Amino acid sequence: MAEIFRLSRPEDALEALLSSLAPGPLDRELLSAAESLGRVCAEDLHSPQALPSFVRSTMDGYAVRAADTYGASEGLPAYLHLAGEVPMGSDSGLRFKKGECALVHTGGMIPEGADAVVMVEQTQKSRNDEIEVLRSVAEGENSVQIGEDVAEGSLIFPAGQRLRPQDIGGLTALGITRLSLAARPRVAILSTGDEVLPPETSLVPGKVRDINSYTLSALVEEAGGVPDRRGIIADNHERILSAAQTALQESDILVISAGSSVSVRDLTAKVIDALGSPGVLVHGVSIKPGKPTILAVCDGKPVIGLPGNPVSAFVAARLFLLPVLRKLLGLREYPAKTAERTVRARLGRKIASSAGRADFVPVKLVYTDRGLPTAEPVFGKSNLIFTLIHADGLVSIPVDANGLHGDDEVEVQLFS
Amino acid sequence: MAEIFRLSRPEDALEALLSSLAPGPLDRELLSAAESLGRVCAEDLHSPQALPSFVRSTMDGYAVRAADTYGASEGLPAYLHLAGEVPMGSDSGLRFKKGECALVHTGGMIPEGADAVVMVEQTQKSRNDEIEVLRSVAEGENSVQIGEDVAEGSLIFPAGQRLRPQDIGGLTALGITRLSLAARPRVAILSTGDEVLPPETSLVPGKVRDINSYTLSALVEEAGGVPDRRGIIADNHERILSAAQTALQESDILVISAGSSVSVRDLTAKVIDALGSPGVLVHGVSIKPGKPTILAVCDGKPVIGLPGNPVSAFVAARLFLLPVLRKLLGLREYPAKTAERTVRARLGRKIASSAGRADFVPVKLVYTDRGLPTAEPVFGKSNLIFTLIHADGLVSIPVDANGLHGDDEVEVQLFS
Repeated sequence: MAEIFRLSRPEDALEALLSSLAPGPLDRELLSAAESLGRVCAEDLHSPQALPSFVRSTMDGYAVRAADTYGASEGLPAYLHLAGEVPMGSDSGLRFKKGECALVHTGGMIPEGADAVVMVEQTQKSRNDEIEVLRSVAEGENSVQIGEDVAEGSLIFPAGQRLRPQDIGGLTALGITRLSLAARPRVAILSTGDEVLPPETSLVPGKVRDINSYTLSALVEEAGGVPDRRGIIADNHERILSAAQTALQESDILVISAGSSVSVRDLTAKVIDALGSPGVLVHGVSIKPGKPTILAVCDGKPVIGLPGNPVSAFVAARLFLLPVLRKLLGLREYPAKTAERTVRARLGRKIASSAGRADFVPVKLVYTDRGLPTAEPVFGKSNLIFTLIHADGLVSIPVDANGLHGDDEVEVQLFS
Repeated sequence: MAEIFRLSRPEDALEALLSSLAPGPLDRELLSAAESLGRVCAEDLHSPQALPSFVRSTMDGYAVRAADTYGASEGLPAYLHLAGEVPMGSDSGLRFKKGECALVHTGGMIPEGADAVVMVEQTQKSRNDEIEVLRSVAEGENSVQIGEDVAEGSLIFPAGQRLRPQDIGGLTALGITRLSLAARPRVAILSTGDEVLPPETSLVPGKVRDINSYTLSALVEEAGGVPDRRGIIADNHERILSAAQTALQESDILVISAGSSVSVRDLTAKVIDALGSPGVLVHGVSIKPGKPTILAVCDGKPVIGLPGNPVSAFVAARLFLLPVLRKLLGLREYPAKTAERTVRARLGRKIASSAGRADFVPVKLVYTDRGLPTAEPVFGKSNLIFTLIHADGLVSIPVDANGLHGDDEVEVQLFS
């Protein structure tokens, strides 16, 4: 039952895994702009045209030649001939001569020869075909120029950008209705353990229902992958190996959630080593919870062995599985800090830790009227899933620290 | 062309709308736990059982009666008779007598009569059927008690809670495989305007491609609603009214995006007033951008008229449409502050504003090694969608303020 763990520091462990993987995206697919919310651009996208494509009014008023209004005031208005009205959505066909103007609505196209708009509130109708301008306007005033939003040919989205609601509007504005997006990596999830039952079964003394297949699936879904739950396999080398081989063939990433006893951990490591080369890169990470995590690359595909305790599995999946998913999506970390959403808080009470190990403690955020929220630690053993359910995020204590004091300012890594 | 705006303060406008709506959820649906990520509980959920349902070991070691180990030390070990091994996932059937122990693995079921676990590292095998315990353990040590994670009957998720990955694990752990979730509100989105073209069409001078139908759809999707784009309608009272009537019948919320010229705004207000009673509650809000927003309730359903400028529509939709969606989902605002994700930052340069109007300015976050990130304003007219695309969030300047100074600490409302 002896066990030798050469524990890796978490950042070294992650680096060992990521540096063994080719950069994403793994594959591309062509989808419509309307389907691309939350998806990641597979290549740089440039603007096919200038936006706007014509000079537009930003006000209800009169299109004018700015020079015709110079010096105009309430006492000495400029008198302009009303040449017509610009209908919304069309080129009026008007060509301005000196001293002419035309009625234009917000968003309307400014006629050729005009170069500014006077707001209707700064005019007065003197006759049917004449208006008085009560204020001078500068060239370009109250209008948007061609290309003021985007210049033709400019980079609008770099490869690796995840698309948000406004980004989709940018695509449709430019007529980009189909685009090349990173394929969603397929993540196979295998649960192992003689004690694990599917959730729909009645309880049997000594057995527990599967948690990890479901929390891991949901984490993958949220992060833009396609989870594939491959069921529960008993603790038997041949059966796990065979299930893992098939799962790995049919997916881009394999995650095996195994029990936390030493024999089962050894079993998982042996199975992973048999899946392909180079095999296990990291066996054991100096984190709590999550120490028995295994990181591997088997014939080019990442394989992650997670501890069976649900809190350990969740914490280790956030630390290692999500960055792998991001790399295989080709996701650009922009802005750097918000890839993982954080909020600063004041720690509600002291947390002890051992140097040489990074601790991750679930915390609940308590907001008050002013100042930073309080991060209240939710203490509990790493097999208690409800410690995570009662929490809003995690506080980490670095490897080299001996704990945190109550009232320390901390950065909380928020859950979704 | 005269126009009288009785501008409402944004918080009064929202309150007028929300207080006219019955609390959600609108409807319920029964779904599987695996499908419930991001969905909202329609009713309080209580635990059908205690978790764990049996006393479990948290270590590899020996199940013992704690009293048998009192006083044990390396110099004076306690000698215990090895009664057997607890297989993973079963009740061993062992019933302990005084002086007995059994091998148990992490997660294994502690036999009747045992009340603690000694870690394997603190034992020594003296004979085949005997171990030496080198340290005393307290009752309950290295084990999890029945109900330590969740007590039977306790409230696990209140109605209105949105489910995260770990919450789904909590459900499956308890055997809750189907549950009642808030139905996703259906949001009909109508674009109007003689100048608006579908994104797939070629440009015509004077016309622009539809942006708002797509950004609004994506905002709705992200917030847990079902967007239903109903196309583009020309600026004609009868046609808009007829399209709006059908759309409202077939959905829970109606959003009309209209042009920003005064005549078109009046047209939209008239259409909305004809849709049902009480009709328009708010016509004009003291915000920039987004002033011409219309808020209405027509025969019990919320109707929102948004300005045509894409930045105005986006800002106003975040301010009014998303809270309505949250109310109709029955979403509990927990924790209060993170319903809308925010981050504190230092403003990169001064922003001018007028008292009597709340301003919303897109900002880009720039992270440095230490301290708060800088929020750099992205200035631009409210018809430039790329000002939102270049930004990470919004900074708001309250109605009563005259602007913000460079270097002021601000709260940035983050985009997704």
